[in-house]
Amino acid sequence: MSEPSPRPLAEAKRAAATDHVLAATRRLVIGSGLDVTMDALAEVSGVSRRTLFRMFGTREALIAAAFDAGMAGYGRKLPEFDGDLNGWLRATCAEAHRMNSVIGPGFFELASRTDLPPDLARSERRRRSDFRAMAVRTAETAWRAAGRDGAPPPELIDTVGAHLSPHFTAAATVEGGRDWRTAAELAYAAILAALQRLQRDTLT
Amino acid sequence: MSEPSPRPLAEAKRAAATDHVLAATRRLVIGSGLDVTMDALAEVSGVSRRTLFRMFGTREALIAAAFDAGMAGYGRKLPEFDGDLNGWLRATCAEAHRMNSVIGPGFFELASRTDLPPDLARSERRRRSDFRAMAVRTAETAWRAAGRDGAPPPELIDTVGAHLSPHFTAAATVEGGRDWRTAAELAYAAILAALQRLQRDTLT
Repeated sequence: MSEPSPRPLAEAKRAAATDHVLAATRRLVIGSGLDVTMDALAEVSGVSRRTLFRMFGTREALIAAAFDAGMAGYGRKLPEFDGDLNGWLRATCAEAHRMNSVIGPGFFELASRTDLPPDLARSERRRRSDFRAMAVRTAETAWRAAGRDGAPPPELIDTVGAHLSPHFTAAATVEGGRDWRTAAELAYAAILAALQRLQRDTLT
Repeated sequence: MSEPSPRPLAEAKRAAATDHVLAATRRLVIGSGLDVTMDALAEVSGVSRRTLFRMFGTREALIAAAFDAGMAGYGRKLPEFDGDLNGWLRATCAEAHRMNSVIGPGFFELASRTDLPPDLARSERRRRSDFRAMAVRTAETAWRAAGRDGAPPPELIDTVGAHLSPHFTAAATVEGGRDWRTAAELAYAAILAALQRLQRDTLT
């Protein structure tokens, strides 16, 4: 058996540069809104406008790629189930709301505008569908960990999704004036209570 | 005792015209964002641009007055406690999320931008403080209805606030794809569970 050939240096550098540009774009757009210019994006990314157009084609494609990369990282960072339902659920709520706490005007624009350019509308559809899949997986894990077979009740999936949503982080922080830790604690309490109630209600 | 003198017709007409302009402004701004023009506001209000400037002074003052009037109506529409804790709490959650369901891009801009013009920043501070006061009153009513004296635990206030917030309506509808009724049901279940747990935990 031969060793897998190492990734060429040039390719690794390109990937690192892309990651850097996407993270800088995500930060700027989330913090200041969707109407940022390519000049502003070039400045925060530390590359030229021309390079950005060469790498991504259009401003909308760059912003969409930045949001897509953020959502992919999100799914990877949630903790694996380790056999301890309460500890894992608490850690999942904490990690989700810690990540959600970066939300700002650009996120809310993406999540609420109905007149998005096609690339951004596609990216937002993908975000909702990825988020929903994450809520289903989390509810399935919790349901099995609670000793139940079969699909989790739809209400458990809705409860998990609504309480891990970036909008729930905002619900605790904007009007409540708390930080993401409070969002995480309220989410943990609400999901655990729903799990216990649904377990009881569906006992055969 | 003399009868209170009836409100002069001219004054009643003026008040009705103001309400009409504020409601039309609120709908347009919530649906399309804070950067609407006075021309667009004049068109949806059915009065001239000049009249709008005469009535409100500036575009920002008009938008702020529209949001303030909306929040005042919000507080008045929540149901009074009628002796039935579960029925009242369910009705409160339903009414809050039904009203919240009109939220759109303009609401999220107001709630997330940190660069608002002074009139709008003041209006948003008032909205948060009115919302917080409503959450405190609701938690107090629930706590007393559950047979407990004294101030409700801070966690109950946070739970009520986070679950009646317009952001919680969005948490259930945006990623979850449900409607405001689901937000209301999830809110009712979470608040009731928190109330029952906190009642148990604080028994002396």
